[in-house]
Amino acid sequence: MDPFLKAAIEEARLGALEGGIPTGSVLVRQGMILGRGRNRRMQMGSPILHGEMDALQNAGRLPAHIYQECTLYTTLSPCAMCAGAILLYGIPRVVIGENVTFLGEEHWLKKRGVVIELADSEECVDLMSAFISEHPRQWSEDLGEGG
Amino acid sequence: MDPFLKAAIEEARLGALEGGIPTGSVLVRQGMILGRGRNRRMQMGSPILHGEMDALQNAGRLPAHIYQECTLYTTLSPCAMCAGAILLYGIPRVVIGENVTFLGEEHWLKKRGVVIELADSEECVDLMSAFISEHPRQWSEDLGEGG
Repeated sequence: MDPFLKAAIEEARLGALEGGIPTGSVLVRQGMILGRGRNRRMQMGSPILHGEMDALQNAGRLPAHIYQECTLYTTLSPCAMCAGAILLYGIPRVVIGENVTFLGEEHWLKKRGVVIELADSEECVDLMSAFISEHPRQWSEDLGEGG
Repeated sequence: MDPFLKAAIEEARLGALEGGIPTGSVLVRQGMILGRGRNRRMQMGSPILHGEMDALQNAGRLPAHIYQECTLYTTLSPCAMCAGAILLYGIPRVVIGENVTFLGEEHWLKKRGVVIELADSEECVDLMSAFISEHPRQWSEDLGEGG
């Protein structure tokens, strides 16, 4: 498996161990991970720290040209917020673990010129499926859905 | 002036006093501020804490129906990331201080059914214009632009 998708899955597994939503992400440039992150809603009470946002946060402040040479790996299809962050920083390529349990804004990203690669990872699907069946309310909350 | 736009401007002014990018935001429901925030790039080294994101973060975890009854006030037209967060949580109405110094993703928000109200505030324009002329590099960085 791609070592960077593997690193994103490691983050998702750490999240699961913490009782969090098991999505993870890494920001990669020239074969180096600049930032890694995982969904922190449950752990930190945060509505904005999805895996991708946490990876961007942990990479810190970067000049524009760095982002423009990056690939963002994420275990799950990016939602509107994370897709917007990808566009804001002009990240040209996104590798997605799976889009079966949730299909995000891939169409919007492609329309704006972002290259999307789907890994179709069963491991990613299994992680999310287990979480959703055990914690449906928390998962709805993370999507701004439900009551 | 609308008291909530005034509160968002107060946040922006606090940001300016801290040496930060002077944008501010408040999340309001039924006449009450649930969260207030300001851009924290300079203060906290954060690439994700735009004013709107900081307000959402400070409002904490909320169930979907609460966001769906909110108005987000922001001193500056929302970028792709912040617009995406507005769509993720289904916030139905956004009041924008100004879109002269930066025009964000208003078109996308409108297309997805968000009601946009533009206050055309000179005070907001003046705050941003002063920052941009003094710190053009930091402003470019916040937009993922420049070198």
